[in-house]
Amino acid sequence: MLVLIVMNFKFSELVGYMKPSEIRELLKFASSPDLISLGGGMPNPDTFPIDEIQEIITYVLKNSGKYALQYGNTGGLNELRTEIKKLIKGTENIDSEEKGIIVTSGSQQALYSLGKILVTPGETAITEAPTYVGAISAFNANGVDMQGIPMDENGMRIDLLEKKISELKAKGIKPKFIYTIPNYQNPAGYTMSLERRKRLLEISNENEIPIIEDNPYGELRYHGPRIPTIRSLDRDGNVIYLGTLSKVMTPGLRIGYTVGPVSVIEKINILKQALDLATNTLAQYIAYEYLKRGIIYKQVPKTIKLYSRKLDLMLKALDEYFPEGSTWSRPNGGMFIWATLNESLDTTAMVGRAIKNNVAYVSGSAFYPKGEKKNSMRLNFTYPEDDQIPVAIDRLSKVIREEESLAEAK
Amino acid sequence: MLVLIVMNFKFSELVGYMKPSEIRELLKFASSPDLISLGGGMPNPDTFPIDEIQEIITYVLKNSGKYALQYGNTGGLNELRTEIKKLIKGTENIDSEEKGIIVTSGSQQALYSLGKILVTPGETAITEAPTYVGAISAFNANGVDMQGIPMDENGMRIDLLEKKISELKAKGIKPKFIYTIPNYQNPAGYTMSLERRKRLLEISNENEIPIIEDNPYGELRYHGPRIPTIRSLDRDGNVIYLGTLSKVMTPGLRIGYTVGPVSVIEKINILKQALDLATNTLAQYIAYEYLKRGIIYKQVPKTIKLYSRKLDLMLKALDEYFPEGSTWSRPNGGMFIWATLNESLDTTAMVGRAIKNNVAYVSGSAFYPKGEKKNSMRLNFTYPEDDQIPVAIDRLSKVIREEESLAEAK
Repeated sequence: MLVLIVMNFKFSELVGYMKPSEIRELLKFASSPDLISLGGGMPNPDTFPIDEIQEIITYVLKNSGKYALQYGNTGGLNELRTEIKKLIKGTENIDSEEKGIIVTSGSQQALYSLGKILVTPGETAITEAPTYVGAISAFNANGVDMQGIPMDENGMRIDLLEKKISELKAKGIKPKFIYTIPNYQNPAGYTMSLERRKRLLEISNENEIPIIEDNPYGELRYHGPRIPTIRSLDRDGNVIYLGTLSKVMTPGLRIGYTVGPVSVIEKINILKQALDLATNTLAQYIAYEYLKRGIIYKQVPKTIKLYSRKLDLMLKALDEYFPEGSTWSRPNGGMFIWATLNESLDTTAMVGRAIKNNVAYVSGSAFYPKGEKKNSMRLNFTYPEDDQIPVAIDRLSKVIREEESLAEAK
Repeated sequence: MLVLIVMNFKFSELVGYMKPSEIRELLKFASSPDLISLGGGMPNPDTFPIDEIQEIITYVLKNSGKYALQYGNTGGLNELRTEIKKLIKGTENIDSEEKGIIVTSGSQQALYSLGKILVTPGETAITEAPTYVGAISAFNANGVDMQGIPMDENGMRIDLLEKKISELKAKGIKPKFIYTIPNYQNPAGYTMSLERRKRLLEISNENEIPIIEDNPYGELRYHGPRIPTIRSLDRDGNVIYLGTLSKVMTPGLRIGYTVGPVSVIEKINILKQALDLATNTLAQYIAYEYLKRGIIYKQVPKTIKLYSRKLDLMLKALDEYFPEGSTWSRPNGGMFIWATLNESLDTTAMVGRAIKNNVAYVSGSAFYPKGEKKNSMRLNFTYPEDDQIPVAIDRLSKVIREEESLAEAK
């Protein structure tokens, strides 16, 4: 049963902060077929272009089988890098030569590599708070002291960033990078305003701190205008840009890419020789054909249509069911809504009750480098079926109300 | 052209120790269609079961497409782990539960992970000398101080290992692991005798130093008896065993596995969440079906037949052409012959002349943790065409004789 559970949501993400005995207890309930998970970070498999991938693989194995199953070079398939170069120029107005691009085994590998290359263990870097849980684990594994900057509906609070940099400066500390997910942030769903992007670049320049711009969700835009990527606004080579095909093709093929100064790309290349030698060659051929044939441009609008509908369903259900005193983000894209409950509640402690009531989420504390906030949660709207969404939110609302009653009774 | 060159051999491996200007110079020659490379570490693509993989993929995408293209769990596809459990029991008499097995993105990821998990930067570990270049980069990336133990035709010199451990003990240093490739070692081609394997286990036990047994070539046995794996002889849980499907299926799918104490496997799992989240799901489904359908047992004998013939061709050519004063290993399996030249020669300095004469190899110094020996080279016999093998060895012999004349003239 465990396979199915993990397929439904990243269980480790959900229970990473629990005791083994608690996990065992939960697993009994988590295998229930009635469980609706809002906990995962997974694309909806209805968006997977399975037939097109089947066709591509048949073509690739017939024409290039001996290459597509052989070791590839560490930097990535050259033809794929050329297609990525065209993709980011066309969609995000990013200019780069092929040698400024490296293919990675998912963006996760890029995050780990940058954590290792840019930081000596014990040194400081800046992230948003909350931020992507995979970035936290990648930076933690490299001994990075993460300083989180709070966000609002316009993204990272740049005024607080400046304050933090000054404070650190006074202690003789210079952060080694600033990590941001500017579009439809995971987990918060917020998007950084154009004004803040420009100011962030100025701060990066003034203080000589590189920016890591992670943009997995940029193409999943349902409302609002497209805001230029920070990398496309950068004139000084201060931005390292991370992209992925996980949300616009399929995640199981593990194709990410990093665009940056050649000196940084070369360092990632050397590290990647030690990490995994090279990314899966067949997956790179699939990605190459997927981009070259332009399938991505037919696929993404379908995905947007599906996810946009699910987002609206969840926002409607939240308006209808969620208890007073709760607030939540209203994202213009991406995969997640961030909800903040009454301050007396601890969403980590509440996970067990939620799962027993057949609904799952990820508690907010997982997304803070130092686990500060206790009363928030991340809700995924892309994976559940349409008709499951109001049911799940209704269940969750009841669980929250129960917790509130208990908290009051204490 | 660079793609093709890299497809022919790992160029970075070959020229990793050269200046950029020298590399540019060499690249002009390396793109020659007449170049025969004995330099790569690549399986021969004639061994790739392309049709079977095509059939498997069609089946998998039709029946499990939504799972095979989705994120998988970090430990690996459970069904694949069950098949790996059966495989290692059947071929190597290794007993393990599924939870003692983790799927990795190639063995390379396991080497990196173990270097990080078992060692604090600056601490010491023991390898064979020479040893696998990918292990050197994995351990180097984790700040491991590698102490190399010389080998002879019976593998690692266990007497010298004992001496080294005593010497280190006198300095208050305890090595954190002993890394060995006991079968048809890369690069040396030697196989560790049964007697030494048993003694190695005793030493591991007495000194409480875990063994990392890396066995990528065990199934590629052309002559001599099968010698039990160290892991199958271990009664005390001291051996971490690394396997891969790269040499018995295809390398481009990047499927490796680690078998070890559950505590170690769990630590790799946590690190892997930071490294790349999970291994390519489709590749794991392919590997699962490949093992379950027993295709591996039809494929390996064909590979053995091909490689065994190529080994014999290369040994014959070496006997016929190689200059007096040179010696070389006569491996019973695997992919490599190790040749040692006249002591006055430096094989790294000779690479340029070799490539200009349309033959490539990897100079031996690349395989020493601290680059000691200068007069050895690794010759790959699995990749070149049959009729290229004597031509390449003839060319290489002439290059060596020219270098010898020049050395004498000095």
